[in-house]
Amino acid sequence: MSVNADLQRERAAATLDSEDFARWWAGGSWQLEERRALERRFYEDPDFAEPVHPSCLSYKERYEQTVARSTRFLAKLRQWQREKQPQLQLSVNMLRDFRLLLSGSLGTGLFQQSFPLRVHFSMFMTTLLSQGTEEQQAQWLNRSWHMDGVLGTYAQTELGHGTFVRGLETRADYDPITQEFILNTPTQSSYKWWPGGLGNTANVAIVLAQLYVKGKHYGLQSFVVRIRDERTHEPLTGVDVGDIGPRLGGNGVNNGFLGLRDVRIPRNQMLMKNAQVLTDGTFVQGRPPLLLYGTMVYVRVITLKDVLFGLLQAATIATRYSVVRRQSRINSDQPEVSVLDHITQQAKILPQIARGVSYRLVSDWLWRFYEDVLRQLEDESTAGRNSLPELHALSCCLKAVATDEASEGVDLLRKSCGGHGFLSSANFDSIYGLTAAAYTYEGEYTVLLLQTARFLVRQYVDSLKRKVLPSSVSYLRDTSRLVWGKNLAANCVRALEISAMEQVRQAWQTQKTHQSSKVSAEMASNLAGRQLTSAAIAHAHAFFTRNALEQVEALRKKGDLSPNVSLVLGQLVELFVIDTFLRQSGCVLRWNNGITGTQLRFVERRFEELLAKLRPNAVALVDGFDFHDRVLGSTLGCHDGRVYERLMEEARRNPVNQEPVNSSFHNHLLPMMRGKL
Amino acid sequence: MSVNADLQRERAAATLDSEDFARWWAGGSWQLEERRALERRFYEDPDFAEPVHPSCLSYKERYEQTVARSTRFLAKLRQWQREKQPQLQLSVNMLRDFRLLLSGSLGTGLFQQSFPLRVHFSMFMTTLLSQGTEEQQAQWLNRSWHMDGVLGTYAQTELGHGTFVRGLETRADYDPITQEFILNTPTQSSYKWWPGGLGNTANVAIVLAQLYVKGKHYGLQSFVVRIRDERTHEPLTGVDVGDIGPRLGGNGVNNGFLGLRDVRIPRNQMLMKNAQVLTDGTFVQGRPPLLLYGTMVYVRVITLKDVLFGLLQAATIATRYSVVRRQSRINSDQPEVSVLDHITQQAKILPQIARGVSYRLVSDWLWRFYEDVLRQLEDESTAGRNSLPELHALSCCLKAVATDEASEGVDLLRKSCGGHGFLSSANFDSIYGLTAAAYTYEGEYTVLLLQTARFLVRQYVDSLKRKVLPSSVSYLRDTSRLVWGKNLAANCVRALEISAMEQVRQAWQTQKTHQSSKVSAEMASNLAGRQLTSAAIAHAHAFFTRNALEQVEALRKKGDLSPNVSLVLGQLVELFVIDTFLRQSGCVLRWNNGITGTQLRFVERRFEELLAKLRPNAVALVDGFDFHDRVLGSTLGCHDGRVYERLMEEARRNPVNQEPVNSSFHNHLLPMMRGKL
Repeated sequence: MSVNADLQRERAAATLDSEDFARWWAGGSWQLEERRALERRFYEDPDFAEPVHPSCLSYKERYEQTVARSTRFLAKLRQWQREKQPQLQLSVNMLRDFRLLLSGSLGTGLFQQSFPLRVHFSMFMTTLLSQGTEEQQAQWLNRSWHMDGVLGTYAQTELGHGTFVRGLETRADYDPITQEFILNTPTQSSYKWWPGGLGNTANVAIVLAQLYVKGKHYGLQSFVVRIRDERTHEPLTGVDVGDIGPRLGGNGVNNGFLGLRDVRIPRNQMLMKNAQVLTDGTFVQGRPPLLLYGTMVYVRVITLKDVLFGLLQAATIATRYSVVRRQSRINSDQPEVSVLDHITQQAKILPQIARGVSYRLVSDWLWRFYEDVLRQLEDESTAGRNSLPELHALSCCLKAVATDEASEGVDLLRKSCGGHGFLSSANFDSIYGLTAAAYTYEGEYTVLLLQTARFLVRQYVDSLKRKVLPSSVSYLRDTSRLVWGKNLAANCVRALEISAMEQVRQAWQTQKTHQSSKVSAEMASNLAGRQLTSAAIAHAHAFFTRNALEQVEALRKKGDLSPNVSLVLGQLVELFVIDTFLRQSGCVLRWNNGITGTQLRFVERRFEELLAKLRPNAVALVDGFDFHDRVLGSTLGCHDGRVYERLMEEARRNPVNQEPVNSSFHNHLLPMMRGKL
Repeated sequence: MSVNADLQRERAAATLDSEDFARWWAGGSWQLEERRALERRFYEDPDFAEPVHPSCLSYKERYEQTVARSTRFLAKLRQWQREKQPQLQLSVNMLRDFRLLLSGSLGTGLFQQSFPLRVHFSMFMTTLLSQGTEEQQAQWLNRSWHMDGVLGTYAQTELGHGTFVRGLETRADYDPITQEFILNTPTQSSYKWWPGGLGNTANVAIVLAQLYVKGKHYGLQSFVVRIRDERTHEPLTGVDVGDIGPRLGGNGVNNGFLGLRDVRIPRNQMLMKNAQVLTDGTFVQGRPPLLLYGTMVYVRVITLKDVLFGLLQAATIATRYSVVRRQSRINSDQPEVSVLDHITQQAKILPQIARGVSYRLVSDWLWRFYEDVLRQLEDESTAGRNSLPELHALSCCLKAVATDEASEGVDLLRKSCGGHGFLSSANFDSIYGLTAAAYTYEGEYTVLLLQTARFLVRQYVDSLKRKVLPSSVSYLRDTSRLVWGKNLAANCVRALEISAMEQVRQAWQTQKTHQSSKVSAEMASNLAGRQLTSAAIAHAHAFFTRNALEQVEALRKKGDLSPNVSLVLGQLVELFVIDTFLRQSGCVLRWNNGITGTQLRFVERRFEELLAKLRPNAVALVDGFDFHDRVLGSTLGCHDGRVYERLMEEARRNPVNQEPVNSSFHNHLLPMMRGKL
């Protein structure tokens, strides 16, 4: 099949070598080629073709097809793994690599709305690893890895409680006579709700419950509970389990609910690495799990990577479509132009690419920071303990702001594709669903911002006491005003930092004012909520922009970049910085009232200059992300640009088009037309 | 069933009488009661129960169920109409009233994602009325009204062209020998694409096509084309028709595609009120249809009303849920609070209510303005002709900005409901789908803004020549700086007007600068695209805020409001004005650099004061919109607040939960666990 002529022209005219970019983006030639080989292996396998677009299926059909496909996928993926590394041993790192295969581009290409068995390898197995004793691991881990009678899920959130974990109502009462725990969800609102795979797939759940021994409360503990019979899959006595129903996105996950009524499990099914209940009911608290913080941070870094992945999928689709789509003339004596030639369209799309790339740079840095802290914690060094609050605060606000901006970006990119972007076959709806979900899961947006804000206010108070601050917040001590220099991006970052510092100061003052008017400290925090969240957002913007600039510099110094990649990367990060500055101009101008109209016009002109510089490389750039067509899953975004052909092909595949006359004509329309209704 | 205790408490403590508000909102007691009676009639009818939530159905099943339900609905609606007005005659106004029944709260309550036969009564019949000759109307209208062998749709947009109507490729060649038109979609991209009901439902389409007589082009004309056999519903020879597939929203509409290959229709099936082709092929152009502008404006006013309806549906759901949902403590020694007690939650929800109500006031005014202009045009007065550009420009930017802000608002309200808001049973996804669609249909967002911007720049140039400007843009002549007075809302409006004026000036200057650098005027407009759209957005904000304030004043003067309604309405509009000002603060501060930090803090404090004032009436207010539970269609938003019960009930209804063990266990999971895959 031929490639769309406009796309061909774009590729021929680009100054960026997309293969060059792809190699850097993938982390090296070898990584790029390995991924491509793996993707070919699966995407060319007829077992993974989809005869009907999932959006046409009923919810139940979709579940059944997803299970069928995912079992084939897991079997073949392990086959591939055995070929590659016959001696592979189960370990934390190996499990992590395996999970990345399930959730990365390969998993996305095969399961645009995810699949139910992922949580078995992510939350279920990792919790066994991190909270199980050696005996418990011996009992469960190997069977879990081989899915030998064990399909697990992780059940924490309840109908009535998500954010406020202490409010969870599920309880486990220890019975010293039988040496069992008795699990109950005593109220409607205590039903477990959301766990992936729980609905119809998992037969074992790690259940978070309030532990009670002889009526005394010992806080939340984790329990391994079999919920379905290993052979028949029937729910066990006392277990009420099912699927919670369709959602905005991620409809392959089989999220479920779980009610428990006097379900008894042996004592050794409480995960006891960190706390134990002895046979007689004595409760022994181990050392508090510092690494738990680490897990939360890990998930947030991964989420940051997930949402930038979604943002760049969407940007790739929109960029290619905007070249293929010709609409309206600019000059009336010339043909219609590619919509990407309209500057308003460039302004919608290119900053999203810049944002995704910049997030990538920052997420790589954050990952290294996380690994450093983890290593230090394992070595029991104080440096690790000291860095934890900073790491935690950063991961909170970066995750919150990135998911918000990425989902907004995906939506804007969809809208930039006009009506066709609205079709499920364009796949923006799936991408948006997954990105938007991240706004809430693993730390709700506003809650995370408030956590960061508390850290910022503490640091600000320390700065008043002239203490040394962690590097990510050291700007809070810098009270100098903005000096507008030649380096525009540096001016923008500094202005964002000043804004952040002033927002933190304002939040702190608001809290103080409320406190002095006799409300409690907690109520004062509530009343300062808008100022506190604004401060955390401003901090995230300041950090994202400064860090992205620093990462480009570091990459250049290391000599990792070819000249063209270096040039384009510099343009992208500069565009990201300027775009952030302009989007935050309300906050920026409020706290930097020395900025003049002339300076602002200068920034805007540079913004448009950067659009013009990046425009010729737009297609080469998105080609360089190297998304396989299956990963994009879009009629609008394929590499060959055959947009209209694919839209028609996808429409013709729809089951509703397989018969010339739908049965409802004879059953309903004809009787109505004959006045028989 | 009992009502949730927290909701009961809220209702008991409110100072606003929600029935008072409801009467005003509905336009009077009689209107309120009539609507309620009509809704009861349909919602209590077991024919309109939904045994399975539509989100669980396959696309084809959904189509079939929608057709079944909608034929029953139409039959019963007409029965009701006959009872009410036995002598009813078909007329423009009667048709309009009928359409409002199909699309308003009744239609929404029965068809959350709309239904395929709506376009028959909206676009199809109105086009017959506005473009058909008397003979053509005699031939088609009565049959259409009775759906006697005629189920119509309106086919304009093509795969390759939406916005740029002149680029449409479908052609109609007149053959003087047989006195027929021959219709063709000569390319892939000329396939008609999107018309509602076209897929499997309609048997007649009004097709927009380029008219050619003897090879000469006479522009776009409308043709009535039978596409399916009246008796068998089989597509006719040369007709290639089907459904375009699932979408982000509006999945009940049966949007379709249509290819035509040498389809012949008699000469009298070109709609000839405004232009004729005589038997010998002579083309006669009538007077240009001024009223066409009117139709476009009409659709935009309706769209404005539609999106504020969706925004307030979402706000009602979020408000009730935020009272029922208790999460986290504010003071550690007290129980968890309703999430609406967190100020960050109030800041998400209350401004959306304020926005919806303010849009309603402005849309009522716009509707009256539209009717005035229409009357003047019918009287052939020059006042009407002179007002058209202003009306058109206003309707463009108000529609664009309102759809953008409303869909953003619906999404924010969804997010304010955390994980549960993500479920389809919460219904935010349907509401968002319909609201987001309006961003593109009937005038794409950016395209509409550019149309308004052109008008604004022309008016600005006139202002430099000291001409008198239409009242909505008279502020463009006012070059005075902001004087910060005691009336905060007035300050905000004036600051927004100054910003709009300066944005218009800047856009005009940018165009001039580019023109002087030797690019064409058209290219200069393209290059000034960002400035132009910003100007139109700023104008919309200035207009929305000023007009909303004026409408409250006018209502108060007329004495239409009870004291409590008047008080709350004043608070809402003030909140809307201040919220707009704060959200636009980047633009505002840029162009009003006299605004001080103290003044800004004052505005912010007032914003929070208004949140506190409105908080106790939040539930009473949304009760006053009087959405029937069926209209909200949400497990989270029902009047009785039984949120967790409904979530569980809806989950249990899901077909995937009807059998304890899904077939995929035996087919796939068990073989995988046994290593047989």
